[in-house]
Amino acid sequence: MAESVQLKLVSSVKCFGGMQNVYSFFSKQLQCETRFSAYIPPKADTQNPVPVLYWLSGLTCTEENFIIKSGFQRYASEHNLMVVGPDTSPRGCNIEGEDANWDFGTGAGFYVDATTEKYKNNYRMYSYVVKELPTVVEQNLPVIKDARSISGHSMGGHGALICALKNPGFYKCATAFAPISNPTASTWGVKCFTGYLGDSKETWLEYDATVLVSKYTGPDLHLRIDQGSVDPFMDHLIPNNFVEACKKAGVSLDYRLHDGYEHGYMFVGTFIGEHIKLHSDILRK
Amino acid sequence: MAESVQLKLVSSVKCFGGMQNVYSFFSKQLQCETRFSAYIPPKADTQNPVPVLYWLSGLTCTEENFIIKSGFQRYASEHNLMVVGPDTSPRGCNIEGEDANWDFGTGAGFYVDATTEKYKNNYRMYSYVVKELPTVVEQNLPVIKDARSISGHSMGGHGALICALKNPGFYKCATAFAPISNPTASTWGVKCFTGYLGDSKETWLEYDATVLVSKYTGPDLHLRIDQGSVDPFMDHLIPNNFVEACKKAGVSLDYRLHDGYEHGYMFVGTFIGEHIKLHSDILRK
Repeated sequence: MAESVQLKLVSSVKCFGGMQNVYSFFSKQLQCETRFSAYIPPKADTQNPVPVLYWLSGLTCTEENFIIKSGFQRYASEHNLMVVGPDTSPRGCNIEGEDANWDFGTGAGFYVDATTEKYKNNYRMYSYVVKELPTVVEQNLPVIKDARSISGHSMGGHGALICALKNPGFYKCATAFAPISNPTASTWGVKCFTGYLGDSKETWLEYDATVLVSKYTGPDLHLRIDQGSVDPFMDHLIPNNFVEACKKAGVSLDYRLHDGYEHGYMFVGTFIGEHIKLHSDILRK
Repeated sequence: MAESVQLKLVSSVKCFGGMQNVYSFFSKQLQCETRFSAYIPPKADTQNPVPVLYWLSGLTCTEENFIIKSGFQRYASEHNLMVVGPDTSPRGCNIEGEDANWDFGTGAGFYVDATTEKYKNNYRMYSYVVKELPTVVEQNLPVIKDARSISGHSMGGHGALICALKNPGFYKCATAFAPISNPTASTWGVKCFTGYLGDSKETWLEYDATVLVSKYTGPDLHLRIDQGSVDPFMDHLIPNNFVEACKKAGVSLDYRLHDGYEHGYMFVGTFIGEHIKLHSDILRK
């Protein structure tokens, strides 16, 4: 049995009848103190555990942006869903250069397990998200085990897709907002993969949703992608390659292109309610 | 007829089918370039003008905080209401000391017309909000004239109450979240009134909602105040004095104390939908 982790409550604010909490603990994967947010819906308690949606944020975010800007709490309260949001990288590890760029290092962990010498001891966001965080959440918060799903935005949309595709059955549903869908063909992806994984492109493919979905044979993930039609980062996101790969692989995907929407939280906030309803419906089937 | 003002569009982002815009123009009252936000609901255009809710923000805010953090757009879209949010003070006027405090000067205009020598040429937020801004909005955006209402948060709740109470009939409805209800008895209020209005306390009373409501004889304002029970700023807000003054004056007030809620946007976001529905209902009567 896993050793029990003690959470510290960083903040706790009432919202739509539930509590928007932020916790911290020392992560073994990241080798640093890390924070995550958890919205506890009004009816959840140890006698009444609820399903949990993991939310992965995008470049430059902390655990805070989504809880302040998306308005998701209304829907999580209504659908009685816990929503857990990790940070986007380790912090304060004193790695030379980790704070020099907005799109690499701090705030840009890219949800991979780094193998390069400088980053391999801390930048293990993939194992943190799929192993350590769910364990810690299930030990400490009133969630139903095996009723997990995952979603995210931009870099976090990439994270949600790869975490679900690499762990068939672990997440019952995966959705994404404007995800970096084919990172090995994106300058954002190439920069982070080079820095965290080195020059061997073979290893990059293990973290590319468009590659992974081509080989996916697990249960239906109820994949949904929402994308704004005037997103200025479309060249980094490349959703069409993922859409084509799903078609070729026979994997069901609900891809929705929204006329006139951009990349930010105004877009996420507009559609997050529909995603939360979908996750809740699938997790309660 | 008022001289026409040309607005500059600072930003425009689609949200819940409408457009969340930010405009700027040179304000004669404030003698500086100033910004305001306007959410244009999906069905509003010059052939189909809509009612307008003015939203006044609290200390330290710009026109941006409310549009990013409250999630109000969902409800404004649903109820086909325009929502306009001015800045909380003039900016960049180069008045010595105006940036020295978070609770006075920049970001803290307190919705009064200053009379002290240093501030009287720029800090005219009261006249800006009740005269210049509505004129500019009605000249430039698809709103129904005489279908205005007002709301706000904290310092902005104070602003909403005094603007409505001082101009009977101009706003059809006034609501507030955790307003500074009796500023002449609040250290925040005393600091700003002293700085903007000088030591003569007689003039302060003209901007104190608890004093103003005692003399109010205009049409029903459908006053509503929402207040969190664990708001850490209760000593500055003093809602009970306002509640008592309404009772004595026979002015109808829907005062709602919400158990366990605090002061910030998690509180505002939880109840903003009910306020927007109320404003829409009253403005369409």
